Amino acid sequence: MHTQHVYTFGAGEAAGDGTMKALLGGKGAALAQMTRLGMPVPPGFTITTTACTEFFRSGGTWPVGLDDEVEQGVAYLEKVTGKVFGGMDHPLLVSVRSGAAVSMPGMMDTVLNLGLNDQTVQALARKTDNPRFAWDSFRRFITMFGDVVLGIHYSRFARVMDQARGDRDEREMTAEELRQVCVQLEEVVKDAWGPFPQDPREQLRLSIDAVFKSSNTARARYYRKTHNLPDDMGTAVNVQAMVFGNMGANSATGVCFSRSPKDGTRFFYGEWLPNAQGEDVVAGTHTPLPMTPDAPGAAEALAKTGGKALSDAMPAAYAELVALKDQLEQYYKEMQDMEFTVEDGTLYILQTRTGKRTAAAAVQIAVDMVEEGLIDIDTALKRIDPVALEMVLRPVLDPDAPRKVIAKGLDASPGAASGKVIFHSEEAQELAERGEAVVLVRMETSPEDIQGMTVSQGILTSRGGQTSHAAVVARGMGKPCVVGCAEIAVDYARQLFYAGDTVIKRGDWITIDGATGEVMEGKVPTLAPPTDSGAMATLLGWADERARLKVRANADNGPDAARARSLGAVGIGLCRTEHMFFQPEALRAMREMILAEDDRTRARALAQVLPLQRAEFEQIFRAMDGLPVTIRLLDPPLHEFLPNRAEDIAQVAKDIGVRTEALTERLRQLHEANPMMGHRGVRIGVTTPEIYKTQVRAIFEAACKLTREGVVVIPEVMIPLVAIPKELEINRQYVIEVAEQVLKETSVHVDYRVGTMIEIPRAALLAAEVAEHADFFSFGTNDLTQMTYGFSRDDMGLFLPAYIQRGVLTESPLAHFDTEGVGQLVAMATERGKSRKAKLKCGVCGEHGGDPAGVHFFHKVGLDYVSCSPFRVPVARLSAAHAAIDQGR
Amino acid sequence: MHTQHVYTFGAGEAAGDGTMKALLGGKGAALAQMTRLGMPVPPGFTITTTACTEFFRSGGTWPVGLDDEVEQGVAYLEKVTGKVFGGMDHPLLVSVRSGAAVSMPGMMDTVLNLGLNDQTVQALARKTDNPRFAWDSFRRFITMFGDVVLGIHYSRFARVMDQARGDRDEREMTAEELRQVCVQLEEVVKDAWGPFPQDPREQLRLSIDAVFKSSNTARARYYRKTHNLPDDMGTAVNVQAMVFGNMGANSATGVCFSRSPKDGTRFFYGEWLPNAQGEDVVAGTHTPLPMTPDAPGAAEALAKTGGKALSDAMPAAYAELVALKDQLEQYYKEMQDMEFTVEDGTLYILQTRTGKRTAAAAVQIAVDMVEEGLIDIDTALKRIDPVALEMVLRPVLDPDAPRKVIAKGLDASPGAASGKVIFHSEEAQELAERGEAVVLVRMETSPEDIQGMTVSQGILTSRGGQTSHAAVVARGMGKPCVVGCAEIAVDYARQLFYAGDTVIKRGDWITIDGATGEVMEGKVPTLAPPTDSGAMATLLGWADERARLKVRANADNGPDAARARSLGAVGIGLCRTEHMFFQPEALRAMREMILAEDDRTRARALAQVLPLQRAEFEQIFRAMDGLPVTIRLLDPPLHEFLPNRAEDIAQVAKDIGVRTEALTERLRQLHEANPMMGHRGVRIGVTTPEIYKTQVRAIFEAACKLTREGVVVIPEVMIPLVAIPKELEINRQYVIEVAEQVLKETSVHVDYRVGTMIEIPRAALLAAEVAEHADFFSFGTNDLTQMTYGFSRDDMGLFLPAYIQRGVLTESPLAHFDTEGVGQLVAMATERGKSRKAKLKCGVCGEHGGDPAGVHFFHKVGLDYVSCSPFRVPVARLSAAHAAIDQGR
Repeated sequence: MHTQHVYTFGAGEAAGDGTMKALLGGKGAALAQMTRLGMPVPPGFTITTTACTEFFRSGGTWPVGLDDEVEQGVAYLEKVTGKVFGGMDHPLLVSVRSGAAVSMPGMMDTVLNLGLNDQTVQALARKTDNPRFAWDSFRRFITMFGDVVLGIHYSRFARVMDQARGDRDEREMTAEELRQVCVQLEEVVKDAWGPFPQDPREQLRLSIDAVFKSSNTARARYYRKTHNLPDDMGTAVNVQAMVFGNMGANSATGVCFSRSPKDGTRFFYGEWLPNAQGEDVVAGTHTPLPMTPDAPGAAEALAKTGGKALSDAMPAAYAELVALKDQLEQYYKEMQDMEFTVEDGTLYILQTRTGKRTAAAAVQIAVDMVEEGLIDIDTALKRIDPVALEMVLRPVLDPDAPRKVIAKGLDASPGAASGKVIFHSEEAQELAERGEAVVLVRMETSPEDIQGMTVSQGILTSRGGQTSHAAVVARGMGKPCVVGCAEIAVDYARQLFYAGDTVIKRGDWITIDGATGEVMEGKVPTLAPPTDSGAMATLLGWADERARLKVRANADNGPDAARARSLGAVGIGLCRTEHMFFQPEALRAMREMILAEDDRTRARALAQVLPLQRAEFEQIFRAMDGLPVTIRLLDPPLHEFLPNRAEDIAQVAKDIGVRTEALTERLRQLHEANPMMGHRGVRIGVTTPEIYKTQVRAIFEAACKLTREGVVVIPEVMIPLVAIPKELEINRQYVIEVAEQVLKETSVHVDYRVGTMIEIPRAALLAAEVAEHADFFSFGTNDLTQMTYGFSRDDMGLFLPAYIQRGVLTESPLAHFDTEGVGQLVAMATERGKSRKAKLKCGVCGEHGGDPAGVHFFHKVGLDYVSCSPFRVPVARLSAAHAAIDQGR
Repeated sequence: MHTQHVYTFGAGEAAGDGTMKALLGGKGAALAQMTRLGMPVPPGFTITTTACTEFFRSGGTWPVGLDDEVEQGVAYLEKVTGKVFGGMDHPLLVSVRSGAAVSMPGMMDTVLNLGLNDQTVQALARKTDNPRFAWDSFRRFITMFGDVVLGIHYSRFARVMDQARGDRDEREMTAEELRQVCVQLEEVVKDAWGPFPQDPREQLRLSIDAVFKSSNTARARYYRKTHNLPDDMGTAVNVQAMVFGNMGANSATGVCFSRSPKDGTRFFYGEWLPNAQGEDVVAGTHTPLPMTPDAPGAAEALAKTGGKALSDAMPAAYAELVALKDQLEQYYKEMQDMEFTVEDGTLYILQTRTGKRTAAAAVQIAVDMVEEGLIDIDTALKRIDPVALEMVLRPVLDPDAPRKVIAKGLDASPGAASGKVIFHSEEAQELAERGEAVVLVRMETSPEDIQGMTVSQGILTSRGGQTSHAAVVARGMGKPCVVGCAEIAVDYARQLFYAGDTVIKRGDWITIDGATGEVMEGKVPTLAPPTDSGAMATLLGWADERARLKVRANADNGPDAARARSLGAVGIGLCRTEHMFFQPEALRAMREMILAEDDRTRARALAQVLPLQRAEFEQIFRAMDGLPVTIRLLDPPLHEFLPNRAEDIAQVAKDIGVRTEALTERLRQLHEANPMMGHRGVRIGVTTPEIYKTQVRAIFEAACKLTREGVVVIPEVMIPLVAIPKELEINRQYVIEVAEQVLKETSVHVDYRVGTMIEIPRAALLAAEVAEHADFFSFGTNDLTQMTYGFSRDDMGLFLPAYIQRGVLTESPLAHFDTEGVGQLVAMATERGKSRKAKLKCGVCGEHGGDPAGVHFFHKVGLDYVSCSPFRVPVARLSAAHAAIDQGR
């Protein structure tokens, strides 16, 4: 006894069913299932994926018994159709299609009308009394078979047909013309391969072999490897009796979706063509017709072609189709993408599968199906890819608008933006104040550009990677951004950039698409961003109920905080305060402070910074009324506040009234070989406590003022870059001293917490000791990843491409969280911290807080919250729900 | 019943004994013990340390019963001496001394002659019939009591005595003169404090209070804190009947050592003064006399003073002293430092303690004592401070030579060196080739200076800390080095440096002392370095037998390897290969390689490097015949091989025949924001495999050649900076491919291993996976410490001083291994690595391999070896023995 390799289906009975996807492939399982459901599926049989894998295991020979089983399958088809394969009276024609469990690129396309040859074509003509149909079918068969089975380039066949057709619609060609085309096509085959195989059984065997082999091309193997699919999954082969949509005016073929793949509404959407076969609908050679006259775009298509909607042209078939799609949705609990054919008035359904859809449609469908009782909430939540959500909330380019792409960089932050090209942040601010739309173009950005970035519609840089300053900041701002666009050459001096032959000058309009990395000349219209729709709100509400992990946002100012809140953030997990020192007045004061030679000057300078920061904190606290706000005290090294170009040094020295030499000398003192590992964060807190103390005073003065106004303020002061428990102990003391002093001065009570970033490996190792001085931990996974790998994000561009090419890394660990290595530190620190202090709150801030794989991991190791950029909040909320559901399973 | 607070001793009986150091202090315990041993100790009593701690606990009042006990102690003294405290007939005088368990700075000095007042001084004069002695004793008492008990500045008393003495020796002053001095001294007390306390019991109470209080000064508390001593250890107080060395010509006082504290030989060494008291010997106001006429320096002292050696002047006392010191050594099993007094011909011993000694003496004494059967080998090993050993092996300045110190920097690498000042490495090489002694003076050094450093006698830099490039490399070379000498200003352009008013020009001689950080003008004579003496060899031999941890050395060339071997290294644990690329021919080729635009040019350039490296490896292998040599493949980023000064860029471009613009552009590409975390180590192995392959070929060609000559070569190829197991997997494959190819070409068999540095936190976390591709791990604790702390050694100077000042760190974690944090990673990686691969050999290379605390830790976590700079090898060998002994206990 041997394994069964062939599963038949037809006439209401099927050897397989819908659950057997691994064995029969997705298409074979669907055909079996639809047959069992009593649907009008043309009979056929499926050769299993096992047969395919045995084929390769034995070096390319069919497994024992497959010959016989295929022959039995053909006999079965002859029996149920009453036709004969190769028969001269009533010939049986079949289609042959590949059908793996998971569809892969490079797989063989369909072969239709197999079984035709110089004799059977004539029999078909006689039997149908439709010679034109017979020869049309034959010319299609020779072309498809020659192309996909014999490997003769498609263009050689197309050339014959094009010449014969001239500039007519091919449907105007006569039977005789088509017969002559067939003769010529057979000549093409003979030239390239040998005499056209006349024996239908040889045609079938060659086609099955070709399907098998197409599952093992380099392209398919690469796809399996990169998608973590088993390399021996093989493909099934579906052999099915032909039905013909090209049999005349009462025949047709089409594709349809059970709901709109674009917006997910319950609109039965599809396209069809009368008297056509297979690929005609999708090939774009004919304008397809709508299913109903009220479909989007139906009026234009009908006007252009003079045709009718299917519901009007073939009302019975249409009604049957509507019933079928409802039945299939009931069975599959999913939106279906179907292929159908009407042969001389009779409807056949040839295939059904889960329909692809936009992210917005996916949300709508999932929510609707829960409300229709088709699926439960967990299923609905799991159906949505969290990453896709982000796209829903960004403006997109109008897909129909013309555009001239002049360069392509890295897709750093999605969304489309148009504006005038400006090269300097100060100028961007000036234009923005006049209400002009600006795209900031830089070789790279630095913290001094933050204000310019804030006011720009989008950012374009010629250097840097996905984790460059520009990319990270833009994602944080939810602002479209293209980085590392090496195809442009920025010339600051001449205020222009080159992109190939194109020169874009200061003030010219460009458009960037942060989702594709494309840079376009001029202003390409965008579509308004889909709003937080009813379905979206429902879905995310469900997600919040399901998730254990809370989601906060990283936001540095009032408007960002408000946006984060509207996107569902339940707090600010990271408010960076650097930018507050870069406002012009603050920057000047900060520089005076850094250059001060005595405590009084230093204190006076910091006093100027205080009210500016207080005002900023007030805005943020007001936006987050009732929710916690984690404020990170100053993090970057002091030299970032000083100029580094010679011309700027002289100007700044003049501005703040010191000698250029003094400034140069101070710069020399502050210069660092490795600034990332230098004098920053809590280290400044230890050496220059006045800065942190000023910030803390600003925070608590703001908190007290708003508390008096009735706003509920929950400040969490966070100290960055701790490596040694004592660093935190000392600085926590400073925070508490100043906070208590302000509370006492104002006689207001504010609940606050003092905690730390865990972003240095040593802090993770000593988490128990660090926890003694912390109310909360926030994992700064950006720096923690860099320190743990010993990679600097600014420099890894030098070797990352080689690393990915040689398989050392599959992606940057800064983009996707390294659960294997850095994850150990996060898990260890959480466990140790919470063992020492049960109430310790642990979260993650940094880009990984919005990375679904990261969120899963953070859920698993028991963190309390993640914090990410506002536009990633929905992603994180849904990911958190997924993590909870997966853990429950 | 209350605790006993007072322990008496005298007349052969003592309440305490030598084991009661914690309760009685070191001095009190020794006095009790000596009394028990029947030695001539003046009677006395000791107030316990517990009394002192209770004093502080109760806010400064004496514990219950102490009053009575002190009174009983006084009564006891009166009884055994037959004198009366404050008596007008035969007055009892006592000394009061502090005596903690561990001596601390800031503790109260001795008060002698307590009990004297305006009446008893006269009684003493009468009783001794020696008014001069009585008034001399009184003026000493008023001064000491006023200074150390009442806190009146010493100079106020000294002024009175100086005026009265004029330019005479004070021994020439008459009784009457001294009496007048006493009157004036009492006036000083009255002015500053109040009437001089006449009541001996009040004198005693004030003195005891003063001793108590002196154990709790800020200075003492700081000392306890920094030495990990309990803060409540307190101090004991010793009250002892006076004996007088100042009673006339037949009286004397002195200090002596049971063996030479300088070289450890069994020579009874000491100094004494006739008719003197207490501090006169050590105060330096009189030239002390030798114990015997054959003592070192005796002839000069005798000639100058016209005095006699003790053995001649007081033969009986001398003979008794010799017997006592032998008895004390037998009891304490340690070299003793004793104080004695001869009162009118009778010898008294006042104190004994373990004698301080030089490192060389310590070794000699420990080895001798084992041979004398006094102590066992473990005790001998534990007696030697490993760090002190390093000093024994370096040249030292002749202590008697005059010198002019012009600046002081950091003591980066011990040893003294003199040479002509040279500012550039190339010129240092030229002069060295002509046989001239050179001291290289730089603002800071870089890898390009390695050759210049190699040929210099010593290195002086104006910048950098203990872990700057200069310091680390110099320690590795065992070369004297002073760094961070901010007091000098180097002017490269004018080829000179300033040190205060002094200008030192190129070619002038200077001397540096790397053990003190001093920079001296001219050539100060040095003493030849003590050689690896017999005792040293014996001691280290014992250490090797005792130790489990093996000790290797870091050495980069043949001579260093030979030196390491002579110092007992059993292999090379780290051979850096960078310097091999910095030889002029290699550097040129390396630059061509880096700038090459095609593979052929790159290959041709590397082919030039190959023979140069092979020759270097041959030298090292030959020196290490039979021992393993771990060779680290190239570690620094490529830009280190390119020039960075504008003028050099043009020259280099010309030299290697590229356009200046091309070189500048390549430099721009290679520039890194954080080079420490940049494109270096294995990352270059991944992106540019040709470099490692060339190095591996050079290694194995050298290994095969020497193997043929009969040398036993055991190469271990080490790949640095691994963070991802795959990095190692790929590069290990390269190494094996090239190695096997060379072995095949030469038909020679060589055993070799391929391993990795563990210096990136992630490699430690993933040690199990890394171990799969490694035969050995070598912990690079320098980089591992920097990454774990997020500190860069080049930049930490900006905050380290503040960190130490505020108690965040006690020292740089680069100087002393951080067992708490970085240690966790080392322990974890060792455990995980060995679990996955039992045969995995684990060691440490880097400065911590020679740090005794580090060695203890590395022993404890189960490493197989440590590797350190050659001059630290003895330190590590002894530390390894200590670790084994400590674990055994």
